[in-house]
Amino acid sequence: MTGVSANRLSLNTATVKQQWNLEQCIEGCARHGLGGIAPWRDVLQDLGVSKAAKKIKDAGLQVSGLCRGGWYTAEGALTQAVLDDNRRAVDEAAQIGADCLVMVVGGLAEGSKDIQGARAIVEDGLAQTLDYARSVGVKIAIEPLHPMYAADRACVNTLSQTLDICDRLGAGIGAAVDVYHVWWDPDIQEQIKRAGQDRLLAFHVCDWLLETKDLLTDRGMMGDGVIDIRGLRSDVEAEGFAGLVEVEIFSADNWWRRDADEVMQVIIERGASAC
Amino acid sequence: MTGVSANRLSLNTATVKQQWNLEQCIEGCARHGLGGIAPWRDVLQDLGVSKAAKKIKDAGLQVSGLCRGGWYTAEGALTQAVLDDNRRAVDEAAQIGADCLVMVVGGLAEGSKDIQGARAIVEDGLAQTLDYARSVGVKIAIEPLHPMYAADRACVNTLSQTLDICDRLGAGIGAAVDVYHVWWDPDIQEQIKRAGQDRLLAFHVCDWLLETKDLLTDRGMMGDGVIDIRGLRSDVEAEGFAGLVEVEIFSADNWWRRDADEVMQVIIERGASAC
Repeated sequence: MTGVSANRLSLNTATVKQQWNLEQCIEGCARHGLGGIAPWRDVLQDLGVSKAAKKIKDAGLQVSGLCRGGWYTAEGALTQAVLDDNRRAVDEAAQIGADCLVMVVGGLAEGSKDIQGARAIVEDGLAQTLDYARSVGVKIAIEPLHPMYAADRACVNTLSQTLDICDRLGAGIGAAVDVYHVWWDPDIQEQIKRAGQDRLLAFHVCDWLLETKDLLTDRGMMGDGVIDIRGLRSDVEAEGFAGLVEVEIFSADNWWRRDADEVMQVIIERGASAC
Repeated sequence: MTGVSANRLSLNTATVKQQWNLEQCIEGCARHGLGGIAPWRDVLQDLGVSKAAKKIKDAGLQVSGLCRGGWYTAEGALTQAVLDDNRRAVDEAAQIGADCLVMVVGGLAEGSKDIQGARAIVEDGLAQTLDYARSVGVKIAIEPLHPMYAADRACVNTLSQTLDICDRLGAGIGAAVDVYHVWWDPDIQEQIKRAGQDRLLAFHVCDWLLETKDLLTDRGMMGDGVIDIRGLRSDVEAEGFAGLVEVEIFSADNWWRRDADEVMQVIIERGASAC
């Protein structure tokens, strides 16, 4: 199995969030020959959704995902404000032609120890967003986050749990599989098979560093850590996943401090050698 | 459901590792009326195993576990040196009358990305240690560690995975359930039921802090974090677990810096109010 060529890579804008705004990311992806981009909502709104959509299209880039909807537990109970914001996220995903809207579902409500309660809120919220998303043809991708984020970011923490939710909610919803979040899971191969092509909506890469110095912002460039990225890519592609390989690296002390064109160059090299 | 009284608590010596040697831990447990102790092998060897066994017995303390055997991947392949060391750990557990020998099984071999290979090494090693442990009547407790330790400490990361191993290896082996490692698991209630009384060999408590600033040494005192400790205790006790509640807190910036008698006092208060 060979590596991933530049035109099969997508840049998640968080990877160079300290260096480039969205316009620079679009230009950078085009200049370096990447196949796609995955913007975050904040930078998308900064540029303006319509303007961004046009620039992305003009640059010939695919949109591997919009990051992110979700966070259903932000206000304790599920509120109209949270649901409305997710509806706007769906609209934005539609406007930029994103392959999916990626959902970071939210952790425990503030002051709560009730993770089962949080999970119920999340599923209720996902169901309502999904109803709307179906009506406008946007696919919803739940991103199970690493268990170390269960309290403060996402109480959906395994692909198995994700697919249980998808089973209950029906068509139009699947998973964003990020190697950083799932690589440790003894059940991951089996669950990727269970997901199947229709529910494998995104594939994100970075690496787990030894040692990891921060729970959020010490993710590694592909090849610098311990994840068998190519093995996991092989697993999703064996099920028919044919989307882009999205590079999403939070790295406060390393990649966020480097020249963004250098980062892009390394991403392309590592796409070939380590993905 | 009421809290845990002092005589149902056990002190894992790592909780005051910066303040007290094993002799002081034994005296401190007796002075504060704790029911038991769980020494680490390094401090046990420092005091001398026979001497420690006598002091623990004279103090009237139960030994909720010996920390720790395992680390089967330490030398890449399973070596005689690693197996011999685990055999010694079994002997030490027998000498001090420990309820179980707790196993932190080891992570990836150095330079390796093959987590399935690591898991195979671990299971082979556990099988061999178990053979010996059965012959001397020591119970082996696999401690599934939080997935954030999969690379560098333990590639057994869920109770489900632990019980799959136990199913294959047979009698004499079970699980040490530490709330810190398992609280996030959507499957934990079901797996505690699956474990049953015979395989629930230890129950460890501390808390998951928001925010967690270090992957290893920023664990919280019970009640200071987000884990529903009482709920999990209720789950294990519903299966018949009647062992001590072992307090194991790694806390470089807080509890390791306080006066150990103060730590003991807080442990007893939180046993009652938060466990």
